[in-house]
Amino acid sequence: MPRPSSLQWDVIIIGGASAGLSAALYSSRQSLNTLLITKDIGGQALLTNDIENYPAFDHIGGYELMTKFESQARNFGTKFAYEEATSIEEEEDRQRGKEKENKNNSTKNFKIKTSENNEYFATAIILAFGKTPRDLNVPGEQQLKGKGVSYCAVCDGPLFKQKKVAVVGIGDPSLDAALFLKSIASKVYIIHQASHAIGTADTIDLLQREKNVSFISNSIVKSINGKSKVESLTIANTRTINSPSSRSSTSPSSESKLDVDGVFVEMGYTAKTSFVKDLVQLNNSNEIIVDKYCSTSKQGIFAAGDVTDVPYKQAVISAGQGSVAALSAYNYIQKLKVGKSAPIKADWKSFRSSK
Amino acid sequence: MPRPSSLQWDVIIIGGASAGLSAALYSSRQSLNTLLITKDIGGQALLTNDIENYPAFDHIGGYELMTKFESQARNFGTKFAYEEATSIEEEEDRQRGKEKENKNNSTKNFKIKTSENNEYFATAIILAFGKTPRDLNVPGEQQLKGKGVSYCAVCDGPLFKQKKVAVVGIGDPSLDAALFLKSIASKVYIIHQASHAIGTADTIDLLQREKNVSFISNSIVKSINGKSKVESLTIANTRTINSPSSRSSTSPSSESKLDVDGVFVEMGYTAKTSFVKDLVQLNNSNEIIVDKYCSTSKQGIFAAGDVTDVPYKQAVISAGQGSVAALSAYNYIQKLKVGKSAPIKADWKSFRSSK
Repeated sequence: MPRPSSLQWDVIIIGGASAGLSAALYSSRQSLNTLLITKDIGGQALLTNDIENYPAFDHIGGYELMTKFESQARNFGTKFAYEEATSIEEEEDRQRGKEKENKNNSTKNFKIKTSENNEYFATAIILAFGKTPRDLNVPGEQQLKGKGVSYCAVCDGPLFKQKKVAVVGIGDPSLDAALFLKSIASKVYIIHQASHAIGTADTIDLLQREKNVSFISNSIVKSINGKSKVESLTIANTRTINSPSSRSSTSPSSESKLDVDGVFVEMGYTAKTSFVKDLVQLNNSNEIIVDKYCSTSKQGIFAAGDVTDVPYKQAVISAGQGSVAALSAYNYIQKLKVGKSAPIKADWKSFRSSK
Repeated sequence: MPRPSSLQWDVIIIGGASAGLSAALYSSRQSLNTLLITKDIGGQALLTNDIENYPAFDHIGGYELMTKFESQARNFGTKFAYEEATSIEEEEDRQRGKEKENKNNSTKNFKIKTSENNEYFATAIILAFGKTPRDLNVPGEQQLKGKGVSYCAVCDGPLFKQKKVAVVGIGDPSLDAALFLKSIASKVYIIHQASHAIGTADTIDLLQREKNVSFISNSIVKSINGKSKVESLTIANTRTINSPSSRSSTSPSSESKLDVDGVFVEMGYTAKTSFVKDLVQLNNSNEIIVDKYCSTSKQGIFAAGDVTDVPYKQAVISAGQGSVAALSAYNYIQKLKVGKSAPIKADWKSFRSSK
């Protein structure tokens, strides 16, 4: 029984930021039937309201840039599913499988399941879901996500005008978040585990001179508390815990409560690639290994952007990679259809089609 | 004797199109003292007045896009030398050489000579000079370049309003050029060697229906004639030449003159890398081989864009590569200075510097 055409696609792209949206624009422009699956548009570009190093824009907000990428992909015909991809499976493509049954490398089709329990099918897949903030992993965090627990000071900071917030995290990212929050919140606590703050000396100096910023050293967050929203943090003093005179590492005397309305977790970013780890080869940082064609170790699966082992994390680099991945997917599909890859026209040769 | 500072640079970039200008923007933004050497700005992006696949622009002219790239690089501090680089040599950096004299990998400095007989020196070099139109290699061509001999219909076509032009070349590029020229010139001759035109059937059909377009088959151009500007072409009939009944391949009876005001050469593009072939590894197409850091086989020399073995030739892909090359050059220079590479900040972490 043939599948409804809305579920079978030439290319499915997972991820909706620089890499994914550029891949979508190129894929659709090559007349490939393209679906982009993402929870939200923009990714980490949204973390800044002033990008000054995307070539051709002296200054542009991350949101504005990503909106332009999105509308361009949409204009070329990309469809969007606002869901989270949760699994990818290979399945034999029966029709093509028959034609090619004597060949070693029989054609696969891919099945993607999502958070909404939908299933989508594609000839080629482009993985471009970037990196995800690392959880703090304490009680209360999951329940209060979006209810005072945030992973993006620039995105959510403005919600905490004249309120008390804490930043929990490591190094410069947590200092940068505090620097942003100090002009919005009434009070900013910076909670860190070492006896002194770690990061750029200038930033630490600057923050120490701010009246509404306090460093809470030798401390870790044990839990985030609150019913419908964040109300307080339970903090343990690591000196008391680690002190030889203290017998118990959970000694109640080492714990204290800190009343806050919000907590910003800055524990770095991680490639959440565990759901594809059996399909494609990863490096030690769980990033997807790609070659210069943005091919992964699995035929028919391509990858682009921060989720890959690309060396630098920049919007234009992700955009370039997304375009490479889409053109490689196009070539892959052409080869399946007609047995050879099609020439990819340089974009400066496009005046014929556009006149 | 120390060199005048204007001649010693941290980074010299050779090439002024997508890859070179993006590299310049990133290099200058990292506070590297950056010189860009190029004969002209824009490269092959100038060949189209409508790019619709550079992410964030639904439509933009190649010239406009390249002008934006250029001014952005200039604003960050890149200096420009409008010359052609003709040679690159390695030389020991004496000062640093002393400090490191026991190490295997002694630091080099590079010396670049140019068409204007200037010498420039740099710690790191980024090769980004793209591809160059292939010459026809007939008498008259060199002398009449820019005087009726052109390699870019879109760039120079408008100069031949109501004049007679010929297109000499191969496949779709020559057909595309004719398609563009037919609405400008009074007459367009398409000269091709085979007995029938080779290229996309639709385009050939379309051109054959045009009154002011003529195909001249079985023909090759023997010379381009004219004193101060192109006046005619000498054309040889290949059937006569190759015919068994003809004894001489230069039989005068096989030659004819065609009066034209301009000739557009469309023989494809080539990477003019011969002046660096002893420094960096090339592939069979004379493209510079790079890894995912845009490093070449020579330490301190990086490469980006169409001159490399990057699979697809697109503005955004070149821009991404240029950015990678610049950040790799930055890391290389940091390592020389402080013995370790510096962390490259993701661009979505830039709000601190921009506030």
